[in-house]
Amino acid sequence: MVKLTGIPDTGNPRIVIVGGGFAGLKLAKSLSKAAVQVVLIDKNNYHTFQPLLYQVATSGLNGASIAYPFRKFFEGQQNFFFRLTEVISLDAGRQLLNTTIGEIAYHYLVIATGAETNFFGNALMQKNAIALKSINDAVMLRNTILCNLENALQARDEAQLNLLMDFVIVGGGPTGVELAGALSELRKHVFPKDYKELNIKQMDINLIQSGDQLLKGMSAEASEKSLEFLKNYGVKVWLNRRVKSYDGETVLLDSGEELKAHTLIWTAGVVGAPIKGLKEESIFKGNRIRVNEYNLVEAYDNVFAIGDVACMISPEYPEGHPMVAQPAIQQGKLLSKNLTRLLNGEKPEAFKYHDQGSMATIGRNHAVADLKMFNREFKTQGFLAWLIWMFIHLISIISFKNRLIVLLNWISGYFSYDKGIRLILGRKKE
Amino acid sequence: MVKLTGIPDTGNPRIVIVGGGFAGLKLAKSLSKAAVQVVLIDKNNYHTFQPLLYQVATSGLNGASIAYPFRKFFEGQQNFFFRLTEVISLDAGRQLLNTTIGEIAYHYLVIATGAETNFFGNALMQKNAIALKSINDAVMLRNTILCNLENALQARDEAQLNLLMDFVIVGGGPTGVELAGALSELRKHVFPKDYKELNIKQMDINLIQSGDQLLKGMSAEASEKSLEFLKNYGVKVWLNRRVKSYDGETVLLDSGEELKAHTLIWTAGVVGAPIKGLKEESIFKGNRIRVNEYNLVEAYDNVFAIGDVACMISPEYPEGHPMVAQPAIQQGKLLSKNLTRLLNGEKPEAFKYHDQGSMATIGRNHAVADLKMFNREFKTQGFLAWLIWMFIHLISIISFKNRLIVLLNWISGYFSYDKGIRLILGRKKE
Repeated sequence: MVKLTGIPDTGNPRIVIVGGGFAGLKLAKSLSKAAVQVVLIDKNNYHTFQPLLYQVATSGLNGASIAYPFRKFFEGQQNFFFRLTEVISLDAGRQLLNTTIGEIAYHYLVIATGAETNFFGNALMQKNAIALKSINDAVMLRNTILCNLENALQARDEAQLNLLMDFVIVGGGPTGVELAGALSELRKHVFPKDYKELNIKQMDINLIQSGDQLLKGMSAEASEKSLEFLKNYGVKVWLNRRVKSYDGETVLLDSGEELKAHTLIWTAGVVGAPIKGLKEESIFKGNRIRVNEYNLVEAYDNVFAIGDVACMISPEYPEGHPMVAQPAIQQGKLLSKNLTRLLNGEKPEAFKYHDQGSMATIGRNHAVADLKMFNREFKTQGFLAWLIWMFIHLISIISFKNRLIVLLNWISGYFSYDKGIRLILGRKKE
Repeated sequence: MVKLTGIPDTGNPRIVIVGGGFAGLKLAKSLSKAAVQVVLIDKNNYHTFQPLLYQVATSGLNGASIAYPFRKFFEGQQNFFFRLTEVISLDAGRQLLNTTIGEIAYHYLVIATGAETNFFGNALMQKNAIALKSINDAVMLRNTILCNLENALQARDEAQLNLLMDFVIVGGGPTGVELAGALSELRKHVFPKDYKELNIKQMDINLIQSGDQLLKGMSAEASEKSLEFLKNYGVKVWLNRRVKSYDGETVLLDSGEELKAHTLIWTAGVVGAPIKGLKEESIFKGNRIRVNEYNLVEAYDNVFAIGDVACMISPEYPEGHPMVAQPAIQQGKLLSKNLTRLLNGEKPEAFKYHDQGSMATIGRNHAVADLKMFNREFKTQGFLAWLIWMFIHLISIISFKNRLIVLLNWISGYFSYDKGIRLILGRKKE
């Protein structure tokens, strides 16, 4: 093995995992008993529980309660090593990664780098819109929302007031829908008390969706009900519209209509975020890495990809699996078994996705859920779905303490109709 | 009254309070029933519970649990108005403040701007040292400590390793002592597990104090015991030394000795942070504002100063009151009464400081406390002092939920010997 920056050679085969999202985390943990060296690298020193980012952005939770330090999570796992770094490029010929801290050699490489926001090549959109993929994004969005209202108190005229108080969310998937719901709650219960000098009724929340239904991919019932819930909250839902351009003020739709807002939140799609240096033929539609049924990157024999960045095509999933947590976790788990099998000269097992359904929440007491359990489908919308949503998310959060803190925030928020983390933190000097 | 940016004229006398620390917060709240308009301005939208900043810096608490949004705190107080802004200068002639959002007129002005770190004019020190006065400071210090250890894994040589792993804290007051204790706990209980590839015994924690005792101003017992506790933790305490220079690597002491560290935390003093535009004669030693026994700034008849920034000289306190929370809270409370008296044409009451004592904690199970209650003095060091310290700090935190979250973190930290918030958040791109 090539001599490396800092990482000791334990004598065991080294598996380097790039990215500690749901897939990488599950894989690294599942390998805890294996006779391998596990090296996880990530640009953050913590795992992010992405499904609750929208609650950080809307003052319901603080960032720390949905983050968990890798070193703490893997405490006691003797074969585990972590490095805080980013990959520059892959050098598959020499079996190593060029990273910001030097070269890292591998016997097996697992790319679990997830997805990034897809601005469809629109540079102006990328510059002016806000994305929501990380804790820093969420805190910045929270700062933006709160600063907008603080600044609205000094608005010169009605036009500037509306630019500050109106919000445009692009994308009617779970993130867009959940964000619109949470913003409506702030508008209904929190902002009228915080900003009694403003007429909060002037605040418009616009949700723009390209297709004719919200939550594409979920059941018709879920789509319809989520639209109904949002309309009841006073969210202006614009179906069958795409954003043509946004200059930081004017949102031009392909229908010719215009909206005005200083804040546009872009949740309208993601693309894979593969590392550089992979063979061109490995990169598939949506910038995802084409893998076979064992998550092996085609054209390599020791490079794997799992989670959002991996595209495994099957008759059932001709475009690959949905880019959500469940396929990532299941692939991470299976790959840990298959790597052990591989090392023992055994035959690996092909991946089969067990879809457990999906859900989205829309403000207090409302959610939609399409569940698949014991080979049965179960659809529900409203209060029961909301309870299920909370339960599933709560048990998915790492660590008892974080779970308790999130629960505490939810309970206190529920009964007080309040969102307590209204902090403008780490704001740049203007 | 001069027409103003955004802030409505309620017809009542307007009291403008600059700064929402302990003093300003108490004053604004105590005026809740008064027939006045209270305008609080602050550069943050939240109050910071400064005594626990050191726990944020050492991964024990997250920033949000010691911050509280002003608008939430004053919810329902009809005479309260908040503006997120900074003062540019005072124009006492026109009875208004020039701020970043425009002019704000006042009938009465209360300066409660607190203190800032005193680098004694050493520009190089200011550039290279880390201060600890805000939540952002604390998060940046936490990032620095954790990044140092992550980078130590890639150290080129022993010299670089020591630069990254060694820490120098300047100042043996409560902040310096508490920080040294908390860092020692990380070194003893957390880092050996997190960084098993490093020899954590190599990590030196140095505490430099100019005088011959720690916690100057507390009792001899407290000073001696705190020194003993820190030495038991393996902190290298350097008494009777001053820092002559620091270039980011070499700490040169006035004794001629040298220490090497990439991280120097400066807690060696504060000065008042008055606003600009005050008459020169009002600024006293330590950049504090000279006030009379009613907290009135001498040479003005409607400008007051309270808290750390105010210097009220009396035979008992020839240099003004200590720059800690208690005088600030007591002055805020009394000034609210005196302003009401003033408006009613009554005689104001002179301020008298009721010293309730002081304390500092040094790692788990250890604290020192000099308490003054019912005209009696009560000194204790060790476990009991530590319990008292926790109790007093816990009840001082705003809001039941924050108290519960801090308590939860303390309990979980106590039994697990862990500090869970080891997150490198908002780190700048290198």
